[in-house]
Amino acid sequence: VAKVSEHVLLQFAPLIYVAWADGELTRDEITRIHDQLERVKSAGAETAAVAARWLNPDRPPSASDLQELLKLMRKAAKARSRKNGSRASLLKLGRELAGQKDAEELPSELAALAEVERALALDGTDALHAILGRDEPAGVEQRVTFSSIELNRFLDGERAATRRQLFEIMRNPAFQIDPRLSTPAYRERVLAAVHLLADQGIGATAFPPELGGNGAVARSITAFETLAFGDLSVLVKYGVHFGLFCGSIYQLGTTFHHEEFLPAVMRLELPGCFAMTESGHGSNVREIETTATYDPVSQEFVIHTPRPEARKDYIGNAAQHGRMATVFAQLRIGDEEHGVHAFLVPIRNEKLEALPGVMLEDCGEKTGLHGVDNGRIRFDHVRIPRTNLLNRFADVSEDGTYSSVIANPGRRFFTMLGTLVAGRISIGCASVSVSKTALTIALRYTAQRRQFGPSAAAEVPVLSYLTMQRSLLPHLALTIALDAALEQLVQRFAAGADLREVETDAAGLKAFASTHNLNTLQAAREACGGAGFMQVMRVGQLRADADIFTTFEGANPVLLQLVAKALLGGLREQFGEMRFIGFARYLGARASTAVAELNPLITRKSDPEHLRDPEFHTSALRYREHRLLTTAARRMKSRIDHGTDSFDALNEVQDHVVALAQAHVERSIIEAFDRKLAQCGDPTLLAVLRPLRALAGLHLLERDRAWFLEAGYFEPAKAKALREEVNRLCQELAPHAVSIVDSFGIPDFLA
Amino acid sequence: VAKVSEHVLLQFAPLIYVAWADGELTRDEITRIHDQLERVKSAGAETAAVAARWLNPDRPPSASDLQELLKLMRKAAKARSRKNGSRASLLKLGRELAGQKDAEELPSELAALAEVERALALDGTDALHAILGRDEPAGVEQRVTFSSIELNRFLDGERAATRRQLFEIMRNPAFQIDPRLSTPAYRERVLAAVHLLADQGIGATAFPPELGGNGAVARSITAFETLAFGDLSVLVKYGVHFGLFCGSIYQLGTTFHHEEFLPAVMRLELPGCFAMTESGHGSNVREIETTATYDPVSQEFVIHTPRPEARKDYIGNAAQHGRMATVFAQLRIGDEEHGVHAFLVPIRNEKLEALPGVMLEDCGEKTGLHGVDNGRIRFDHVRIPRTNLLNRFADVSEDGTYSSVIANPGRRFFTMLGTLVAGRISIGCASVSVSKTALTIALRYTAQRRQFGPSAAAEVPVLSYLTMQRSLLPHLALTIALDAALEQLVQRFAAGADLREVETDAAGLKAFASTHNLNTLQAAREACGGAGFMQVMRVGQLRADADIFTTFEGANPVLLQLVAKALLGGLREQFGEMRFIGFARYLGARASTAVAELNPLITRKSDPEHLRDPEFHTSALRYREHRLLTTAARRMKSRIDHGTDSFDALNEVQDHVVALAQAHVERSIIEAFDRKLAQCGDPTLLAVLRPLRALAGLHLLERDRAWFLEAGYFEPAKAKALREEVNRLCQELAPHAVSIVDSFGIPDFLA
Repeated sequence: VAKVSEHVLLQFAPLIYVAWADGELTRDEITRIHDQLERVKSAGAETAAVAARWLNPDRPPSASDLQELLKLMRKAAKARSRKNGSRASLLKLGRELAGQKDAEELPSELAALAEVERALALDGTDALHAILGRDEPAGVEQRVTFSSIELNRFLDGERAATRRQLFEIMRNPAFQIDPRLSTPAYRERVLAAVHLLADQGIGATAFPPELGGNGAVARSITAFETLAFGDLSVLVKYGVHFGLFCGSIYQLGTTFHHEEFLPAVMRLELPGCFAMTESGHGSNVREIETTATYDPVSQEFVIHTPRPEARKDYIGNAAQHGRMATVFAQLRIGDEEHGVHAFLVPIRNEKLEALPGVMLEDCGEKTGLHGVDNGRIRFDHVRIPRTNLLNRFADVSEDGTYSSVIANPGRRFFTMLGTLVAGRISIGCASVSVSKTALTIALRYTAQRRQFGPSAAAEVPVLSYLTMQRSLLPHLALTIALDAALEQLVQRFAAGADLREVETDAAGLKAFASTHNLNTLQAAREACGGAGFMQVMRVGQLRADADIFTTFEGANPVLLQLVAKALLGGLREQFGEMRFIGFARYLGARASTAVAELNPLITRKSDPEHLRDPEFHTSALRYREHRLLTTAARRMKSRIDHGTDSFDALNEVQDHVVALAQAHVERSIIEAFDRKLAQCGDPTLLAVLRPLRALAGLHLLERDRAWFLEAGYFEPAKAKALREEVNRLCQELAPHAVSIVDSFGIPDFLA
Repeated sequence: VAKVSEHVLLQFAPLIYVAWADGELTRDEITRIHDQLERVKSAGAETAAVAARWLNPDRPPSASDLQELLKLMRKAAKARSRKNGSRASLLKLGRELAGQKDAEELPSELAALAEVERALALDGTDALHAILGRDEPAGVEQRVTFSSIELNRFLDGERAATRRQLFEIMRNPAFQIDPRLSTPAYRERVLAAVHLLADQGIGATAFPPELGGNGAVARSITAFETLAFGDLSVLVKYGVHFGLFCGSIYQLGTTFHHEEFLPAVMRLELPGCFAMTESGHGSNVREIETTATYDPVSQEFVIHTPRPEARKDYIGNAAQHGRMATVFAQLRIGDEEHGVHAFLVPIRNEKLEALPGVMLEDCGEKTGLHGVDNGRIRFDHVRIPRTNLLNRFADVSEDGTYSSVIANPGRRFFTMLGTLVAGRISIGCASVSVSKTALTIALRYTAQRRQFGPSAAAEVPVLSYLTMQRSLLPHLALTIALDAALEQLVQRFAAGADLREVETDAAGLKAFASTHNLNTLQAAREACGGAGFMQVMRVGQLRADADIFTTFEGANPVLLQLVAKALLGGLREQFGEMRFIGFARYLGARASTAVAELNPLITRKSDPEHLRDPEFHTSALRYREHRLLTTAARRMKSRIDHGTDSFDALNEVQDHVVALAQAHVERSIIEAFDRKLAQCGDPTLLAVLRPLRALAGLHLLERDRAWFLEAGYFEPAKAKALREEVNRLCQELAPHAVSIVDSFGIPDFLA
């Protein structure tokens, strides 16, 4: 074999290296390269020698031969500058390394060899990177282009002081999450935490000063929302006592109850339950079976559980700590039935022993919220004073005369329930806090966790992967949108806005936020891989705890139907009341609304500027809501006109009305984000908030693009462009992900 | 006020009743009815008296007045037959009740009143039902039209005997789920259960008779799949020891290891771990950092953890019970690096104390699988005999000479990993079992749980609601499809089919089944409401336990990319190996395939027969897969042609290639269902299996209808028709839901 100069070897080195290095080429293919190399006439003996030595299928080079070749190429590359171009040709690269001028033009004698290289589709760029390294590192690294503290200040707004106050309290060991605690020990620790909150006056925040509170409804919800960054068992136990029990006494009771019970309740000296749900009746509260029968002789109500299924079930605080319960029961006076009313019923004495006639049972282990003692309550003719009826909306006189400030029983029932709307709003807010925690954990993790990478290069942060970005960043954008929507709902609620509108929005946002939260937690858990399954990472436990948020304070499917009914029936009507004549009356008007014509220009438009335009998103979301409303009304009306009753008619189009409710909520969330954005004047913040807003909007449109395609609102090309734009937004936002979650302001001891 | 005859009152009674009963009409509206009623000339004084007495806005009738009216109408209704028709008019109903002939024709003097009724859009059908009850009860009741036992026999096929055997063992108290157990006690109980399985010879099923087994690979997987109906901690602990540890000795070791270790391992006298994953490297096994350095002097390997992140992590059995581990480490001999190999490393002595140089740590509480002791292992220069290298594919001689039956290191690595494919298949099968349990619990619950109903009628089973049906029944259909797909994959695997095809299918089905399972569990949990949050209902705990199935044995996003790469690169190639030249070589061929023209007739066709046609579904699914493959190849090729390397090119279209993998899996599942169905000759079973098959196919098409719309494969009208057909299938299958889940054959002590 002729001696080969380094110069000649270098020319063919990349081709030789790739031919052998990964074992991908077949013997026949290597023979083809070998034959072409031997035939290169002008190159003479040296080239033939290269072929003989390095491309002999019967004598492959050893691993250390290839290592030598690699070293040679790397040395040569250091000595020369290399042009970037389109697809790299291995031959051209070799000539470059050998220092040939005008490497773009291969001499004609190498043409056949170049042809072989092309035919084998050897990927020059990968080889180039494997041999010489990449010009720039692969993967997404985090950048800092704005102040997280400023963004936190902007996002939290008026909530900042309450956040600080609560975070300070939550540093107390009673709040410290310890997955090794047994259930009994955990329950006691949670009780201690709620006592601490009571001692600090947090529980009283919402109630008026004359009752020892601050009259600060918004701050009270912010306190709850802040607690949701911590242990959710504490959150729920706190919510059961202060939100539901204390809240029901305040909202449904009168001065007597406020003076008699609230002081002890607010100090948590009298821990309480909210006993509405029964084993046999969850969502359909109007049909609960517990009875409260008035006895005019003793002037007492007799509280009774008529059959096992009528027991109160899943009641927080009932298994261990509750001493009194707000019990919802059917009021009976003689043979009159007055529907559901609320009564204060003592259930345990000071030693926490069950009172006579009260049978208490532990629900046993749950799949989350292990620190909350949920239980069951049965009553066997338990007598309570007449004055324990929470009588703000209806009363029974000593002689058993029933009176009410609301004549219509249905309206009365829904007015009573309506006073509890703060709970539903609070669960929405808490869901957003949990999503923030999950995203903080998952984005910090994926920004530093490295797996895989280009060949012969370092591994990249897993947040570099498009599918990882897509699984987390749209949730991030939506979480910020939801936060704005709930912040604004709380402000309207605190300012005394129309309660029916607040109820509709609360139902929709609670349903959306709790479902969004579970999706976010699941994405976060999977993003953290096996680490996400460890309790120390919190996401798994948060998922288990927050799971029930989709069910309590109203099961989500039921809530979405309430929203749809409110839209179909007109917001001015109390939706819950539309029992058998309400629907038909409003459907006609809705059904006859014209659906707007589509502009063919808009349905096709797909430039990035248009696709990111907030106005495009809101128009599309408004169109969808309006069209779903009109068509749902038409479909229901046509069924009713043909003799179907409203129950069957609604059920036959239930998927349609749920889509309507969803569309309504999504439109309102995006509009809330726009209102929030309008308050921002800082260009460094806007530079990240605008793409977040665009991603929130586009993600919703992308998720339901099937509907927009069916409706003719998107042409297929537009739908495809939209997906690409979501990809681009994800890629654009990924380097800022950690700064964004930093701006949620979650203290290090919590995330 | 004139005395009114019952006859006259009855005529107007429905109108009067509806006007007052639900408080929906305004005062003005009642006045309008009143005025019209007074003006009815021919009816005379009696009619005017009715108006004065019953429609005086200033003097509404009392609740007991309305009660009387209702009784009157119900008495009258009993005496007469009533015609069904289109939308009921309250006036016509009244005349019917009063016994008027030809109730369809209202006398002209009542025309104005009828006009008012219409204008107020009083819903006659609802009123009719409220007053007289519905002709047929609302809601879905369960029916029995086929034998669940026969369907079970058909679905389980050859798995029946193994199912029975395992269920019998699982009645043992060691398998009994008790949520009150502390983690240490739970771990011991689970260990006892796995001992029982070892004692019964279940763990040995897959191994050849000469090693004390039955050589029954399929039966072994069926045993695992059956265990998955029970406590998932037992399943996983069993899988770690018998599937991974025992399996790795069998698959990667040779006669020496089989004879030396397997007997004790199969009796669980030597419990083991599978130590592959490291804190720093989950999915990217090739880059793990633990080293195994050969010392030719002592003829030992030195196992070492070079830095904290290289510790073995999340290792099942490592925290407490494991005594030996199959450790994956980078083999070093002198300055040669030979890549990842597996070694048997003792970690604990008989007293379960850590051996010298082995540092063991408990991972702590997890969010599920509390009965499995996951731990971390670090090695400080731990010496093992040379013969502890599992040397089926590569060996080191006494003097340190490395040899391998597979020359290419990449191919060797993936061949070693490939032998572990049974684990991936098994997790897919286990996921299906868990879905079956979840659906059994949820469908039995929703078929008997009643909430809401038409006005004045009984509550209906919550499975009557379309949204509930839609949230559960497509999962039911897909579960049966997946079961067929995995059953067939197991048969192919056991029959020795091409291992690379089996690996691709295993990766895809594991990813699909584990994600499907979580979606099913979540739907089931929410369907069970608050009850679903209680441990006794099992769904919540199953959800927590099965969560990690999406991550272990390969994280789903990574698996789906493996599937896509296999498709893009050609199934004959070992997908894992395509490091830097593989892709480009195959993309060209894929990219140049033509995409079939669409038939405009098919894209519009939307009759129910066509929509349910299995051939339509498979054609559509095949078209999608083929088109996604071709277009993904084109997009990648164009990037590579422009100088992007394959890592970046793949990442830029990652959403596309994941969609391709998904499409491939879905097509294969539906085809598997068709093959299964072809074996059924019983018309009573086919009557339910065919709609299930139709629902499985249509659900997949519906879920991705955006893609089919974008591709022009569906016209918008067809996509809408498809949604309606899914609704109809759900309504059709709902009455059979309980019989179908009964056919899963899960014993009562488990669901």
